[in-house]
Amino acid sequence: MSELLVGRHAVLESLRAGRRHYYRLWLEGDGRTPPKGSLAEIVQLAHKTKVPTRHVEGGIFDRIRRAQLNPQGVALETGPYPYVELDDILDLAVRNPDPLLLVLDHLEDPRNLGTLFRSGEAFGVEGVILPERRAAGITPAVSNASSGAVEHIPVALVGNVNRTIDLLKKSNIWTVGLDLGPEAISLTDADLSGPLAVVVGNEGKGLSRLAREKCDFCVTIPMAGSVDSLNAAIAGSIVLFHAFQARAPSEDALGV
Amino acid sequence: MSELLVGRHAVLESLRAGRRHYYRLWLEGDGRTPPKGSLAEIVQLAHKTKVPTRHVEGGIFDRIRRAQLNPQGVALETGPYPYVELDDILDLAVRNPDPLLLVLDHLEDPRNLGTLFRSGEAFGVEGVILPERRAAGITPAVSNASSGAVEHIPVALVGNVNRTIDLLKKSNIWTVGLDLGPEAISLTDADLSGPLAVVVGNEGKGLSRLAREKCDFCVTIPMAGSVDSLNAAIAGSIVLFHAFQARAPSEDALGV
Repeated sequence: MSELLVGRHAVLESLRAGRRHYYRLWLEGDGRTPPKGSLAEIVQLAHKTKVPTRHVEGGIFDRIRRAQLNPQGVALETGPYPYVELDDILDLAVRNPDPLLLVLDHLEDPRNLGTLFRSGEAFGVEGVILPERRAAGITPAVSNASSGAVEHIPVALVGNVNRTIDLLKKSNIWTVGLDLGPEAISLTDADLSGPLAVVVGNEGKGLSRLAREKCDFCVTIPMAGSVDSLNAAIAGSIVLFHAFQARAPSEDALGV
Repeated sequence: MSELLVGRHAVLESLRAGRRHYYRLWLEGDGRTPPKGSLAEIVQLAHKTKVPTRHVEGGIFDRIRRAQLNPQGVALETGPYPYVELDDILDLAVRNPDPLLLVLDHLEDPRNLGTLFRSGEAFGVEGVILPERRAAGITPAVSNASSGAVEHIPVALVGNVNRTIDLLKKSNIWTVGLDLGPEAISLTDADLSGPLAVVVGNEGKGLSRLAREKCDFCVTIPMAGSVDSLNAAIAGSIVLFHAFQARAPSEDALGV
């Protein structure tokens, strides 16, 4: 089954990553004005990979807008999202002294999912693990919300997140859950260096009890104020930023 | 003109904050089951402040769902959002040795706006400044996306953000812009202690040139990866977290 990616970021990053099958590219307009900026790069990449391109006015673009999406003048018909196997992600991880993985335990909101991929890509996440049931998967809306970041990051679907946490621990990867409970360590006191998988739970319910217990430790983000918690994508991104900082080459490490 | 707040968080936090006029509360269902959890607190607060409450099935709740919102069984008709004057925020700020303010320079997406309020409330922001034109204002959708945080934080609308930055500087508040340009300081090297206003720009275009020049300094968030930038709400929240950390009472400051 084919999918329809829309929006300049998602389309451009997908073509740059080159991980899907690409069937057709639609550009809005009469084709008389030469494309500029990211649109020019999209057209160039499509030409290079022999993706048929067509200019249309209205038609498919009107349908996209009726679905509450903003195509920004471009739509790309592609094959399904190219998931990888969990073993592929573990293989990638062992080749890096300091791998950073992300486990999303039943997030429901495609926009939160996309935002976490965008942050993950910015902060060096090498692979993402998602449950295959009762959770948002990688739809075109997620690719859009991720600004195309999902097109670059390897993603594996797993049947059971708790068993995956066990498997990660057996692979010498530390698993850290994001949690608000009293047993969680403050993020600012936590050591997030070394091989690490960050586990983020559901928007409303947080991590499942079992996932929380299986994680090596849990971190919480210190807060003031009267509202209980942060948005799941914000909280996950702050933890990923700290993990990224913990593995960024410092001046000491460079021997400077 | 009245507004309709929907969803348990937005309704509960609005009643807790008590900053609006409240006209009517609607609860979904036949009213035979006693409300539990946050719904029970909502009913209690409405009773205490003499807000008429009615149980309905369908009707207004069907209309809310048709507008793509999830009422979670509750809707509250209120007066307009209670903006304050910029002077009120400056008055608040001077009473605190280390005030933290947030200036949102033409954000367009209500959800990003709401998320930044939610993070701001969690990280001790005492006031938010928004431009009154060409930007998202505090609608019920923003209250919803903020999980009700906007109901607690003072917000002022200003005619000109750049003039406001000047005014903040004259009030001895440091202004720090969030920027990706080469002149920005890495967030991890920036000193965010002391009186501070964080200025976050538009999702696509970032800060305006003038706002960037007016700010005392700009910070950038160090990143890896091939996607250009973070979501504006994520980037702003990470900076706010760092500012919050910089003013959290340390053991030294407590004399321990």
